[in-house]
Amino acid sequence: MTDDAIEHRRLIVAGTGIAGLTAAIYAARSNNDPLVLEGDEPGGQLTLTSEVENYPGFPEGLSGPDLINKMKEQASQFGSDLEHGIVTAVEGDERPFRVELRDGTVYTCDAFIAASGASARTLGVPGEDELMGYGVSTCATCDGAFFRGEDMLVVGGGDAAMEEAHFLTKFADTVYIAHRREEFRAEDYWIDKVEKKVESGEIEIMRNTELLEIHGSAEDGVDHVTLAQNNDGYPSENLDEDGTETFDFDVGAVFMAIGHTPNTDYLEGTDVELDETGYIVAKGGKGGGQTATDVEGIFGAGDVVDYHYQQAVTAAGMGCKAAIDADEYLEDLPEVEAESEAAAEADD
Amino acid sequence: MTDDAIEHRRLIVAGTGIAGLTAAIYAARSNNDPLVLEGDEPGGQLTLTSEVENYPGFPEGLSGPDLINKMKEQASQFGSDLEHGIVTAVEGDERPFRVELRDGTVYTCDAFIAASGASARTLGVPGEDELMGYGVSTCATCDGAFFRGEDMLVVGGGDAAMEEAHFLTKFADTVYIAHRREEFRAEDYWIDKVEKKVESGEIEIMRNTELLEIHGSAEDGVDHVTLAQNNDGYPSENLDEDGTETFDFDVGAVFMAIGHTPNTDYLEGTDVELDETGYIVAKGGKGGGQTATDVEGIFGAGDVVDYHYQQAVTAAGMGCKAAIDADEYLEDLPEVEAESEAAAEADD
Repeated sequence: MTDDAIEHRRLIVAGTGIAGLTAAIYAARSNNDPLVLEGDEPGGQLTLTSEVENYPGFPEGLSGPDLINKMKEQASQFGSDLEHGIVTAVEGDERPFRVELRDGTVYTCDAFIAASGASARTLGVPGEDELMGYGVSTCATCDGAFFRGEDMLVVGGGDAAMEEAHFLTKFADTVYIAHRREEFRAEDYWIDKVEKKVESGEIEIMRNTELLEIHGSAEDGVDHVTLAQNNDGYPSENLDEDGTETFDFDVGAVFMAIGHTPNTDYLEGTDVELDETGYIVAKGGKGGGQTATDVEGIFGAGDVVDYHYQQAVTAAGMGCKAAIDADEYLEDLPEVEAESEAAAEADD
Repeated sequence: MTDDAIEHRRLIVAGTGIAGLTAAIYAARSNNDPLVLEGDEPGGQLTLTSEVENYPGFPEGLSGPDLINKMKEQASQFGSDLEHGIVTAVEGDERPFRVELRDGTVYTCDAFIAASGASARTLGVPGEDELMGYGVSTCATCDGAFFRGEDMLVVGGGDAAMEEAHFLTKFADTVYIAHRREEFRAEDYWIDKVEKKVESGEIEIMRNTELLEIHGSAEDGVDHVTLAQNNDGYPSENLDEDGTETFDFDVGAVFMAIGHTPNTDYLEGTDVELDETGYIVAKGGKGGGQTATDVEGIFGAGDVVDYHYQQAVTAAGMGCKAAIDADEYLEDLPEVEAESEAAAEADD
């Protein structure tokens, strides 16, 4: 089955975001000679952030891409091999694991760290891509403080949207929530918290409202947005109808909170447990092995596991843990192999 | 009871190691105005490491104190107040919490993050303090790679000593383990792993042997050590006896692995669960609240919780989580207070 593999590696790390690169730094220093596969969003979510102020160790701040580049250099100098490659399938039933890339390349490896991150969902409206990092953000915790005193628009109707809107009241003049339907799908807990902020005038809710376009420039940030409203909901699907009103609206920042999708499809053929959204269920607990999955030798770190904190430094911490867990697994592996050979001989 | 408090704070963070400072950065950015108390080992364990190569983001490496100073600057610039103070007692039964310092100062606070770290035990032998960070270390994972090709001495007989000795075989010419008794108290798991390395010639065990002195200089590192051996064990207590032999021995590095003590005594009067060694038992699990303790509003981060990974970046990750957990707790607190006032009125 692995005859087509071009190379066998001790350890493969999927992902070159903060978690993957930190795992690579530690794994390389532990002499596990990692192959680190860089996907279609090199550097991960952090590269969407124009200035990182909260990664500990950089009081002067630095850009997301700068931080990623420093970590890449660090991982490389200790001996990590970084290559472009999108993992499309991992076979976890046999040892070594078989790792298949989108271009057809096949590797085998003794241990695998999934650090392929999550991709924030976006709307695909005009202005969104161009202004991402310049007033458009997918992370209130990362970027909220940059827009103190501005009016802000949060797009979404789930827990994340409520949480981000609530958090942004610390900084915003007024936070507006645009939701395409009448009802929120968020938990009551979050809706109640938002309602209190509505009463105090800090949040204003725009139901049955969709974002059609974002206007501004990289130099001056977001200037205003174009919204559509229809009392029956989903106005963008009914733009030509009588009940749909389209209008411009002034805000200084736009936060997309319409969800993330963890990039874990390639694990679906394994016994690694994924939750209903696709997040890896890691062992957790106390002591060692916190990043272990249901398949011995496959570990998870960063936004493929963490659906809550999702900070650069928490991803880094988990990447470090995954490398240490993988190292402990690999240290034991020769003995495991020796045992199974002995068992095979005994069966003869 | 809190009449003697000089000030009430929203949040107090005990500790200015990596975990405490990261919590301070995040807490200050969340407008929780933290008071950060710096103990007798400002900067924590990391300041014992002369060069940090594995903290992600610094490919050129930096000294432990440099990294700590950068984080301090970062915490301060977002509005954390750093003050010297050793917490001697926290009263967790009432709200606000009452926090008592060694000099008699008393604060109250709504939330408390314990990030007071652990102190590595040392022997107190001549040369140990002077050469700490210059060939003497309490952390093999941090410093092992600096002494590639050298003979190394590990002092200790527990799990940590076995684990560190095993790890150091990656780098050392030979790893020597000096243990003051005949029998190790380490788990069989670790003893077996070490025995395999003894068979392969990578580790040599010196039983009934104690370290008396370390010789060297800050410029050139460790040159050699003086050891004592007695077949009945505990040679340093029997130096004048016939069976005790004292001799010099060449090694290039000395690793103390005689345990750590988490600095959590001040929590003993609370309902915060501590394990038998004194580590805080944090909630863990998935999602939010991973750093919560058994007392709502008291959180733990870094080496007061983590007895396994103990890396700078894992401590930073947990510090960040504690600040986010505390922020969520504090956001809900006004409602809790309002409810209890209402309940008190209803009782009248």
